[in-house]
Amino acid sequence: MRVYLAKELLEANQNNAGENRSLLRASGVLMVNLIGSPGSGKTALLEHTLKKLSGYRTAVIEGDLYTDEDARRLSSWCNQIVQINTEGSCHLEAGYIGHLLAQENLLSAELLFIENIGNLVCPAEFDLGEDIRVVLLSVTEGNDKPRKYPLAFKVADAAVVTKTDLLPYCDFNLNQLNEDLRKINENLALFTVSTKTGEGLGDWCKWLEKLLQRKRSA
Amino acid sequence: MRVYLAKELLEANQNNAGENRSLLRASGVLMVNLIGSPGSGKTALLEHTLKKLSGYRTAVIEGDLYTDEDARRLSSWCNQIVQINTEGSCHLEAGYIGHLLAQENLLSAELLFIENIGNLVCPAEFDLGEDIRVVLLSVTEGNDKPRKYPLAFKVADAAVVTKTDLLPYCDFNLNQLNEDLRKINENLALFTVSTKTGEGLGDWCKWLEKLLQRKRSA
Repeated sequence: MRVYLAKELLEANQNNAGENRSLLRASGVLMVNLIGSPGSGKTALLEHTLKKLSGYRTAVIEGDLYTDEDARRLSSWCNQIVQINTEGSCHLEAGYIGHLLAQENLLSAELLFIENIGNLVCPAEFDLGEDIRVVLLSVTEGNDKPRKYPLAFKVADAAVVTKTDLLPYCDFNLNQLNEDLRKINENLALFTVSTKTGEGLGDWCKWLEKLLQRKRSA
Repeated sequence: MRVYLAKELLEANQNNAGENRSLLRASGVLMVNLIGSPGSGKTALLEHTLKKLSGYRTAVIEGDLYTDEDARRLSSWCNQIVQINTEGSCHLEAGYIGHLLAQENLLSAELLFIENIGNLVCPAEFDLGEDIRVVLLSVTEGNDKPRKYPLAFKVADAAVVTKTDLLPYCDFNLNQLNEDLRKINENLALFTVSTKTGEGLGDWCKWLEKLLQRKRSA
């Protein structure tokens, strides 16, 4: 019997992530990994992002413990979608993504989004080989979350504060959030959006487009 | 070098949980394990519960990855509080709790609350030896969460729907939630609360008091 150590598995994940990154570089696909708590608004952000970026070839890898509800919800808005059900496991790993990149012809997309499992802790530890990691935080979760779950924000390229339409009803201090985020990750891009009112979606999508242009011209 | 298998560790956890349960039975302490996503309102619910139940001897074991912010927030409202910082680990285990029960004189409490790490996935797998497991779900997370994270709801004794003051601003279908919960766990007690308006806190606290009386007379 082969006994696997957690450390070995994390190393294996890192190797797989490197392979994914090489494949994406060769194909010019921009891969974006979205992480955040259950109910932080990942699927809603994706839905509205896909609508706004409908001029591009888009694909989604949808991660859930069970069900394909989110994949069905998004399927009208992208060129291709693949569901991963982890059946209880709390995060996605680079090996799963590599398997799908090889099998599912996802490399014909220009923009490939991954919606990770709803969890602000474990997915932060697993590099999937993405170009861009984005962490979502809804205003109803409270502005203290980066202090309490720092890794997710430390390893991200952007933070998207969601559900800003609910700001009037929540004790959410955006200035304090900004200050805390600067201490954890001074290079983090910060967006504030509401998929209900559309606020902030334009800036967020422009940022993605700029990254895609930069990747293609690299 | 000793290599531990995940299965062995889960078995060890179950043994530790059994020992905790025996200790609690002998002492007549009611131990309540609160689980829920980051920002689901665990600390706020605890704060208001402790205030309402101030006639009892209460203690709290506060779980966080880092920081003792929540413990400081709650310390005025209970007789004793202990902070566990997991430094990145995504759940509490029965062994940690057993250690604290032995070291920290927590068994002199009547009601002992555990605030687990903010995570709707991993803590569901670890029995801590509690009498009562309670899962929180804020209305802003959406009513689809039991379908997508069923284990947390299957192994709970009660679900507390929090932040009901935000119901007018969210697409949250309480009837659908109720229907989904019945399929997953027909014995689940269901509470709806708002710590802002106080709605539902009385029923929730009465339920806890009834369980405490039942435990003492057992």
